[in-house]
Amino acid sequence: MKRLNDLAIFGGRPEFHEPLHVGQLYLPEWSGIEAAFRGIFERQWYTNHGPLVRQLDIAFAKFVGVKHAVSVTNGTLGLMILARALEIQGEVIVPAFTFPATAQALAWGGLTPVFCDVDSKTHNLSAELVRRKITSRTRAIMGVHLWGRACAPDDLTSLAKAFSLRLIFDACHAIGCTHQGRRIGGLGDAEVFSFHATKVLNGTEGGCITTNDDILAARLRTIRSFHPSEEFAVVPLRINAKMSEAQAAFALLGLADVPRHVEANRRRYDQYCSRLADLPGLSITSYATGETNNFQYVVADIAPAQAGLTRDQVVEVLHRENVFCRRHFHPGAHRMPPFRNDDRYAGLSLPVTDLLCQRLLLLPNGATVSVEDVDRVCHLVTTILTGAESVRRRLEQQA
Amino acid sequence: MKRLNDLAIFGGRPEFHEPLHVGQLYLPEWSGIEAAFRGIFERQWYTNHGPLVRQLDIAFAKFVGVKHAVSVTNGTLGLMILARALEIQGEVIVPAFTFPATAQALAWGGLTPVFCDVDSKTHNLSAELVRRKITSRTRAIMGVHLWGRACAPDDLTSLAKAFSLRLIFDACHAIGCTHQGRRIGGLGDAEVFSFHATKVLNGTEGGCITTNDDILAARLRTIRSFHPSEEFAVVPLRINAKMSEAQAAFALLGLADVPRHVEANRRRYDQYCSRLADLPGLSITSYATGETNNFQYVVADIAPAQAGLTRDQVVEVLHRENVFCRRHFHPGAHRMPPFRNDDRYAGLSLPVTDLLCQRLLLLPNGATVSVEDVDRVCHLVTTILTGAESVRRRLEQQA
Repeated sequence: MKRLNDLAIFGGRPEFHEPLHVGQLYLPEWSGIEAAFRGIFERQWYTNHGPLVRQLDIAFAKFVGVKHAVSVTNGTLGLMILARALEIQGEVIVPAFTFPATAQALAWGGLTPVFCDVDSKTHNLSAELVRRKITSRTRAIMGVHLWGRACAPDDLTSLAKAFSLRLIFDACHAIGCTHQGRRIGGLGDAEVFSFHATKVLNGTEGGCITTNDDILAARLRTIRSFHPSEEFAVVPLRINAKMSEAQAAFALLGLADVPRHVEANRRRYDQYCSRLADLPGLSITSYATGETNNFQYVVADIAPAQAGLTRDQVVEVLHRENVFCRRHFHPGAHRMPPFRNDDRYAGLSLPVTDLLCQRLLLLPNGATVSVEDVDRVCHLVTTILTGAESVRRRLEQQA
Repeated sequence: MKRLNDLAIFGGRPEFHEPLHVGQLYLPEWSGIEAAFRGIFERQWYTNHGPLVRQLDIAFAKFVGVKHAVSVTNGTLGLMILARALEIQGEVIVPAFTFPATAQALAWGGLTPVFCDVDSKTHNLSAELVRRKITSRTRAIMGVHLWGRACAPDDLTSLAKAFSLRLIFDACHAIGCTHQGRRIGGLGDAEVFSFHATKVLNGTEGGCITTNDDILAARLRTIRSFHPSEEFAVVPLRINAKMSEAQAAFALLGLADVPRHVEANRRRYDQYCSRLADLPGLSITSYATGETNNFQYVVADIAPAQAGLTRDQVVEVLHRENVFCRRHFHPGAHRMPPFRNDDRYAGLSLPVTDLLCQRLLLLPNGATVSVEDVDRVCHLVTTILTGAESVRRRLEQQA
């Protein structure tokens, strides 16, 4: 294991020969994929709501415990067509501390995201924070279950009801996660999941909208396609957000493996927690006991005063070791185009968001990360933080 | 071969046991797909601009003879991100006689489609028709190369230049088709292709934007993804329109086979033309000699007065025989939501479009249609039209 002077920033060889990534990258057994693809070839049915997509819609609805699951190409398109299906017009309250797609999906629908700060403990919206942003122009709240932690669903449901607002959730982080023991997916008017390769359920690309609302489901099924036979409702606009049979094949096979992948994630998460427990200035975000998380994300918080290094400095040193930890999220959605230069957002103050954007980093977890890799990453982080003074001087010299 | 009284509408058994479809549905050899997917598994790189997508971008640019090809999830998203990349705002002149995605893609970008009639011979926009629609609010022209026939590119280029308008083309029908001997793809500011399974190049889903404009290409590459490393330009908005490695694998293998598939299409097209040559009231749309077409579409025009039956009646009888010929396009884009009920389109008169919407039908062609199938379809059509009087009475009884 490396000593301080062996770090790549001091001229040593990188700890990892190949980049170690943050994404999940779980894949089914090759034999399963081969069989599924032979079936697609025999049927010559590649897309347009084929049998695998229909099977996935049923299987994912059952997995989540919801009436309707509507598969789509990816989570971003899911958010876009959900906003369109609800015919929301005007302002939607969203967190800025999220993947940029959350707010930009709204902008594609001509909606105005109203950025709300998040709670420093949960990293999520709270009803209290949202309430302060409600005006006469507000039409909806879009919560994000960040790191798979349910975004105050009970409080937000009451609030939405009190103000007659739509309530939707970006559940892209939350496959298999629970709220009060029930799997996330049936909250608010609808929720949107991602089956991107970096998620615990891998459709390569892919996503799904879940809802208990029959009318909304019919509208979503119509909007996602221009296929004439897929017209179940009159909708304002349609799009091609069809999931292909190939994506569905991956997702169907992956769905059965979710509990196994979550368990593997959890073991590595626990390993990170125990190995990094005593480092000053570093803490790993914890998940509520009594709920299930998918442990997709190992989120480290770097407090610069105590750690002696900023998050960005730690990231720089780790990248040089080929540990491709990620600054999630940096910058906040409000500091990116198209909102950054929009006068409507001038002077917007989101202190917790800005702080988290400076302090959080994601450590590698998922299929490509072994128990040994975690040990090596933890050793690197320990070496870096215990030698923070020297590391900082070195980085300043190199700047 | 069937006699009149054996038609399904008279109680006979359908001519085809399984539905005969219009789509192309060409697929690569299984061995090629198996090898490609084994590679994807080994690399564990499923999406996010992997090696196959990069290879496809290069190969398709070369195939088309253009500087840049930017692969996307599908043609609709291609049109959406192209309009966004050009920062068009205001009115765009488009034909209503096209797949509904053409105009609805513009609506997703907050643009106003201005529907223009088409020429009765070419089924395409003409510069003369477009010129009448130009106002001070016009910002762009979007031509459609319908049935793979170049949409007056020289005249429209002059017109766009004269009025300082953007000129883009929906080339979703036009893979491998030529204009003045050069493959379509480098016309106007950019062109958008579809690799849907029903096209001669099958990526299951998929599409591509082609352009010779370096700056535009950088903007398109940025818009299509939220991936931080894919930021080549400052853009107003991003989306997830990434092509997956699986889609790229299909498209790459298919690209090499395009000439072979086109040749097979052409043979069946010729067969339709010769077998249906002498039927009164039916004519097959012809393609310009001296240009290459991909013969994806066998377009029949039914003149009801001479044929003794309307197009819709012919379609109904053929559907009962399991010949799933398609009414392309019906209705016109201007008669569908969201434009149908929009006051701005009230009183819009597009006489040629409305006529074509009542008269054209597509006959089956592609991988799943054999030479014998074409003979049987032609025999059915001949039986129907020569017995038009009896068929019409029967349909009226059953109505």
